[in-house]
Amino acid sequence: MEERKIPYKIYLTEDEMPRYWYNVRADMKHKPAPLLNPETYQPMTEEELGQVFCHELVRQELDMETPYFEIPEEIRNFYKMYRPSPLVRAYCLEEKLKTPAKIYYKFEGNNTSGSHKLNSAIAQAYYAKQQGLRGVTTETGAGQWGTALSMACAYLGLDCQVYMVKCSYEQKPFRREVMRTYGAHVTPSPSNTTSVGRKILAQFPGTSGSLGCAISEAVEAAASKEGYRYVLGSVLSQVLLHQTIIGLETQTALKKYDIHPDIIIGCAGGGSNLGGLIAPFAGEMLRGEANYQLIAVEPASCPSLTRGKYRYDYCDTGMICPLQKMYTLGNGFIPAASHSGGLRYHGMSSIVSQLYDDGLMEARSVEQTEVFAAAQEFAKCEGILPAPESSHAIRVAMDEAIRCRETGEEKTIVFGLTGTGYFDMVAYGKYNDGEMTDYIPTDAELQHGFDSIPKFPGNE
Amino acid sequence: MEERKIPYKIYLTEDEMPRYWYNVRADMKHKPAPLLNPETYQPMTEEELGQVFCHELVRQELDMETPYFEIPEEIRNFYKMYRPSPLVRAYCLEEKLKTPAKIYYKFEGNNTSGSHKLNSAIAQAYYAKQQGLRGVTTETGAGQWGTALSMACAYLGLDCQVYMVKCSYEQKPFRREVMRTYGAHVTPSPSNTTSVGRKILAQFPGTSGSLGCAISEAVEAAASKEGYRYVLGSVLSQVLLHQTIIGLETQTALKKYDIHPDIIIGCAGGGSNLGGLIAPFAGEMLRGEANYQLIAVEPASCPSLTRGKYRYDYCDTGMICPLQKMYTLGNGFIPAASHSGGLRYHGMSSIVSQLYDDGLMEARSVEQTEVFAAAQEFAKCEGILPAPESSHAIRVAMDEAIRCRETGEEKTIVFGLTGTGYFDMVAYGKYNDGEMTDYIPTDAELQHGFDSIPKFPGNE
Repeated sequence: MEERKIPYKIYLTEDEMPRYWYNVRADMKHKPAPLLNPETYQPMTEEELGQVFCHELVRQELDMETPYFEIPEEIRNFYKMYRPSPLVRAYCLEEKLKTPAKIYYKFEGNNTSGSHKLNSAIAQAYYAKQQGLRGVTTETGAGQWGTALSMACAYLGLDCQVYMVKCSYEQKPFRREVMRTYGAHVTPSPSNTTSVGRKILAQFPGTSGSLGCAISEAVEAAASKEGYRYVLGSVLSQVLLHQTIIGLETQTALKKYDIHPDIIIGCAGGGSNLGGLIAPFAGEMLRGEANYQLIAVEPASCPSLTRGKYRYDYCDTGMICPLQKMYTLGNGFIPAASHSGGLRYHGMSSIVSQLYDDGLMEARSVEQTEVFAAAQEFAKCEGILPAPESSHAIRVAMDEAIRCRETGEEKTIVFGLTGTGYFDMVAYGKYNDGEMTDYIPTDAELQHGFDSIPKFPGNE
Repeated sequence: MEERKIPYKIYLTEDEMPRYWYNVRADMKHKPAPLLNPETYQPMTEEELGQVFCHELVRQELDMETPYFEIPEEIRNFYKMYRPSPLVRAYCLEEKLKTPAKIYYKFEGNNTSGSHKLNSAIAQAYYAKQQGLRGVTTETGAGQWGTALSMACAYLGLDCQVYMVKCSYEQKPFRREVMRTYGAHVTPSPSNTTSVGRKILAQFPGTSGSLGCAISEAVEAAASKEGYRYVLGSVLSQVLLHQTIIGLETQTALKKYDIHPDIIIGCAGGGSNLGGLIAPFAGEMLRGEANYQLIAVEPASCPSLTRGKYRYDYCDTGMICPLQKMYTLGNGFIPAASHSGGLRYHGMSSIVSQLYDDGLMEARSVEQTEVFAAAQEFAKCEGILPAPESSHAIRVAMDEAIRCRETGEEKTIVFGLTGTGYFDMVAYGKYNDGEMTDYIPTDAELQHGFDSIPKFPGNE
């Protein structure tokens, strides 16, 4: 066996961990379009956003010029409990695929939230505490974001109110119990604790809820309680900023061993993990220092980049949030009930959207069954049981490695393995039983979604 | 804030990883008593054991003299996928407890099996493959061992047949699906695939199974199939040997930072994790090089060390396995249905038993609700959601740290955090709802168990 100079897992020391988040917008020639007030169509002001979000987070959301934001020491200390995350050389997968390609993955699943979500949860909770708030509210679908926020709030001693989509609350009781163990208050949504919840319950007594409704309840709860603000786990530019810890650590680890990646791959739902992973590399491209092939992978059932439109749209299906310019399928688009809940989002981060529109990044869509086939193959040789969302990136990384086998190219492929699939065993069970199906929306279904995009001058 | 010279997580480099397992029996003045043939009461021979276990594993089981066994390269490569595991400084827990004690934990949960079981699973699967076998059979209760073995077999391309106690098979479908995802064949036990299973089903058609029955089925299945052997996840000396990777890594990590532990704590079921953690430290004590306070923690509901007898007994409740001299509650003792399935075992590793009998180790029993209280407190400040089994060690580590707060002693405490609790949320839910109870067996219940210990000359 040849000598392996590069270890299976590249760990940074605590001293090598990033001390700054990177704001890729500072290097972008075409800045992402500003958030718009849904009533006036004017850019959202600091004051308007400050009613919903903490001051410091509003500052981060609006700042398109400052390239680096210092990570406060308390957040860095929290990061040290589960970071730096390893950059893993997939030696076994390479052997199994008989590829000359070198495959690396940045593994973000080694923490109890099971995903990268914790990187932003602790930052958002920290700034809430700095502002002297009592607590935060949020919504959660599959539960990863809610779990991450519960952990961050438990650590800081903040109250955490989670509105969990009722069908998840009932179908995923384990996720709910994890949040409760961390002291969070978990309410099935719609609930009678908010006026919007009561209204929906009166109209649809048997409803199992939706993410849009849960967002509405969380926002109302934050606004109506003294000392509370609302927090969100993806899509926003502040979230991408915090998630750049992923890309920055990856960059440092690669440099430590003089590794030059050719392809960098991430799965894309709202864009937080993808944006966080690729931002520092996109920055190098924007500054003319290097060139990479950046690939976003999305589910064929919810193809916002590959089949969506670049328009202003509501971030939420409830249409109460600001308008954001992004690749979108329309806030009225209802994604098929796939097993990648974290990727079932009609839109995309404005930063990722602009990078894609500028041609710095490409996008691919993949189908569910081929994603689970990749997940299983990966699990068998690399040991880690990946989340269905993360497995979208695995699928394309494997496809690229197989292509290298055919062409003989020794490309270096890096992908983001955002999380683990321990709470996704119902989905794996369906796959094991051969009962999983694919779903690709028809043009008519897409058109129905596009019809929900608000129309106003310059947004047709 | 004071400067923190010792990082949150001490990781060894791959070069620093142990290349040998340590056989503590070589340094023991009083060797563990040999396994006995249950029919002849004579020591089990290599030939007899070789009908059930692989040759190399039999050699390891019987060898009480060789201090070190080289870890084969293929096993070391597999270890590199999830090891070295971190030795974590519990800075946040120390702060929360306001203790002058320094607390460290060796975290074995960062792999898909969720526990330390993988350390021995890969070794046992490797030797089976070396011997040219087609596959292995085993039983699993809660599912951690079965998962670990499935992962190891998937990696090596071996067939894996798991007999899963029927009530777990039905109540823990997620564990079952993890095993199936790794390609294992999982059969609810009792089943009609074995004669012992058919017999039990005929007698008790509605039975939900037991570990004893699953063992019997797995042993029969191995014996009746060409090219199969049976493997076991705890209790045996070979398993403890493989698990010394935990203690050896801990020792190396401590030495790297010149840390001298005073107390070393592990939870004890069959003894595999405890034995693996403490063996290298016990070795130092046996050789007169150092002194430590070693503490085994067991559930008050299943107190084999603190209330058991040191006798020859069957390793299994089905009474088909060899007799082992150990601290035991009797093979007929039925532990209460606690939420720490991994600790519900009537006996204890013969090595751990002998060390305890020789006074090198102490033992404590703790109750379930105080264990979950510790688990929750730990989770909130250290982030990791611990397995109920592991939380027994957390409980005593916290008790010792609180004692240090009272006495002002700056003791250094090391404990083994063997796994994560993601598949134990039913138990956490009960705790969250205030519905968890404790159970301490009465003297009469213990006597009932003792009555099942076989009686023969020298074993009264």
